[in-house]
Amino acid sequence: MNKILYPRKEEWMKILERPENRGEDLDKVCKAVFDEVKRDGDEALKKYTWYFDRVKLECFEVTEEEFQEAEKAVKKELKEAIRVAKGNIEEFHKIQIPEKCEYVNERGFRCWQEGRAIDRVGLYVPGGSAPLFSTVLMLAVPAKLAGCREVVICTPPGRDGRVNPAILWTARLCGVTRVFKVGGIQAIAALALGTKSVGRVDKIFGPGNRFVMAAKQWVGRYGVAIDMPAGPSELMVVADESARATFVAADLLSQAEHGPDSQVFLVTCDESLIDRVEEELNKQLNRIPRKAIAEVALRNSKYIVLRSREECVELVNCYAPEHLMLCVKDYLDWVPEIRNAGSVFLGHYSPESAGDYASGTNHTLPTNGYARAYSGVNMDAFMKKITFQEIMPEGLAYLGKTIEIMADNEKLEAHGNAVRVRNVESKI
Amino acid sequence: MNKILYPRKEEWMKILERPENRGEDLDKVCKAVFDEVKRDGDEALKKYTWYFDRVKLECFEVTEEEFQEAEKAVKKELKEAIRVAKGNIEEFHKIQIPEKCEYVNERGFRCWQEGRAIDRVGLYVPGGSAPLFSTVLMLAVPAKLAGCREVVICTPPGRDGRVNPAILWTARLCGVTRVFKVGGIQAIAALALGTKSVGRVDKIFGPGNRFVMAAKQWVGRYGVAIDMPAGPSELMVVADESARATFVAADLLSQAEHGPDSQVFLVTCDESLIDRVEEELNKQLNRIPRKAIAEVALRNSKYIVLRSREECVELVNCYAPEHLMLCVKDYLDWVPEIRNAGSVFLGHYSPESAGDYASGTNHTLPTNGYARAYSGVNMDAFMKKITFQEIMPEGLAYLGKTIEIMADNEKLEAHGNAVRVRNVESKI
Repeated sequence: MNKILYPRKEEWMKILERPENRGEDLDKVCKAVFDEVKRDGDEALKKYTWYFDRVKLECFEVTEEEFQEAEKAVKKELKEAIRVAKGNIEEFHKIQIPEKCEYVNERGFRCWQEGRAIDRVGLYVPGGSAPLFSTVLMLAVPAKLAGCREVVICTPPGRDGRVNPAILWTARLCGVTRVFKVGGIQAIAALALGTKSVGRVDKIFGPGNRFVMAAKQWVGRYGVAIDMPAGPSELMVVADESARATFVAADLLSQAEHGPDSQVFLVTCDESLIDRVEEELNKQLNRIPRKAIAEVALRNSKYIVLRSREECVELVNCYAPEHLMLCVKDYLDWVPEIRNAGSVFLGHYSPESAGDYASGTNHTLPTNGYARAYSGVNMDAFMKKITFQEIMPEGLAYLGKTIEIMADNEKLEAHGNAVRVRNVESKI
Repeated sequence: MNKILYPRKEEWMKILERPENRGEDLDKVCKAVFDEVKRDGDEALKKYTWYFDRVKLECFEVTEEEFQEAEKAVKKELKEAIRVAKGNIEEFHKIQIPEKCEYVNERGFRCWQEGRAIDRVGLYVPGGSAPLFSTVLMLAVPAKLAGCREVVICTPPGRDGRVNPAILWTARLCGVTRVFKVGGIQAIAALALGTKSVGRVDKIFGPGNRFVMAAKQWVGRYGVAIDMPAGPSELMVVADESARATFVAADLLSQAEHGPDSQVFLVTCDESLIDRVEEELNKQLNRIPRKAIAEVALRNSKYIVLRSREECVELVNCYAPEHLMLCVKDYLDWVPEIRNAGSVFLGHYSPESAGDYASGTNHTLPTNGYARAYSGVNMDAFMKKITFQEIMPEGLAYLGKTIEIMADNEKLEAHGNAVRVRNVESKI
């Protein structure tokens, strides 16, 4: 990790730069796969599952038998852990369900807003080296709380044509009964276009490699929504002299192990903390299995020493980190000043990994500076808000003139007419 | 308008088909303009403003003098109408501001969610034949209520190099002081990339022609968000025997006059209503100035007769209209069943034009079937929701085992370490 001491503000943008996002070159691949899935349906899924995953599948849907095997295969201790996490995620998401809000105008009209679940959602759960059953929790729990009618999961099969049992067990625990063994661009294409086995959905959620990400950005062409664009994972730790080097080093590593393109920052006004953290980091690095990955990520990563608490806040808001840890004494005082971040971890005993798994917050968060404009996944992501209005004849008589004048000035006379025909009529 | 009597469900998709969306061919133009704006900044804006709008401008920002002229130019009656509309829009949007919601776990941790305004937003207001000051209201009012720090407007100049006074007057009324005379792809590029005169924003809102829409879909590459993808405007009217043909005909026309690609549907179980509406429609059509536009739109439009109320509801949810009017007696009974729509107008005295201008609901709504997954613009669109968590040492001791087991099973050992170092430490 590079050390940057007291940079001038003009240099911040450069220092905080994210690794270049190279998604555009995948457009051709996306187009080819989508066109083929559109034309050939399940046959195209079979072809690409063989091509990318080296598996020949006749049937994509996970069977009852496979679910039952998963029930046996998952250890009791993991089941219990997943249940505890699910409980907290449910509690925290339940309170986010939007309530109806209404504006009543005494002149005779009212407007209100009501939430409605998105009918059909598709959850993508990556395969590969780690079975991300926590992703199942983070997406299926709010989807079910929202009341989505169809919730399906797509996840790539392993070389043996199977899905990790922890993913299947968690899916069923969350009430998701339809899981498809299909991954990559072809999975996203199937969810967006619909095939005989995988039905079309209205919105697609979930993380994935750069192929999956490119495919998710492609689905806008077919009127399908996605949770958010995503880039490599990030953590910014802001620490003061009360921070403990062992804790901070462990947190930086927990982020760095995600992938070689992860980015971590330690921001502090206490220059001496950097040396202590660095020492700890090197010690702990040798003890983690994903050392090689973390080492690469740490090369993109930086220690930044600033002059004041104000500068720290400004830097945070400028970078808009996916994860922000405030390892400072007076962290509650910082809260109102944090404007741009995905999720914030307060104090010395709130490690980022708590939010990744078990405390209840969602771990699907905006990366790549998107925290400036996007929220992490929350109940809103699985719902729409529809506005309703009920205008009484007297309400329209009151509003009529306003509507007519505005419509006429926008040269949309038929808009005014829709009021005039009613107000003439109601006066007769 | 075509009449379709009692179609079978298998035919619905075909009947409800929207005009093909042809946006892809504009990618090359977008790329060229964005690259040039990135390289040449304001000089590129000047070039394209001359190229597309046939105006030579030295300075893009609207001056104080121009604002003062607008103050004089806008008639008193229009000012009053805009003030009434603004009042309702404010009232209805104010109640949508999200409140903090918190989950406290007695074992020693809590998670909460707080809303934060998006720092910098850019509002695009189309120019052209009609001065859309109502768009200014619909975007600037919630932006200001949210507390966005920078709110700027871009709007194309007329051939005389000026902006319509009603747009300027409304902007200032809403507290927007920076308006730039730049439109089209170059305006969106300026907002996404920043030039010397137009600063970069975090999110871009507003309607526009197909060039503007293509440019808005292009900005994702630069980490900038947009309100929503947009297509031609739509209205679905569901009417029963209590509906009045004069009203319904006026509503269909108010939608049809928007543009030749607008789409309107009248859905009913009362076959005789169709004939009455058609007669009225032909009468009223001759009286509106935008007859030629409406006539083209009506060619894409359909009367659909169905067998039951249940079928009507199902068809609505299948189409997911931007605007839905329920011109039926028992409209409140229908409300819980409407799952997919942008905004819903209830009863015989709630014309769509009321929501376009003055009742308080937002008129920036999801078209093209996006109502299945997207909300119309509301306070959420100008805010993010950030999650926070505060875990006490005893809370982490409680959660620790869960996090460690899950992390180890996902093969992310450093995630577990972040807990272990703390729980070891706190026990010492």
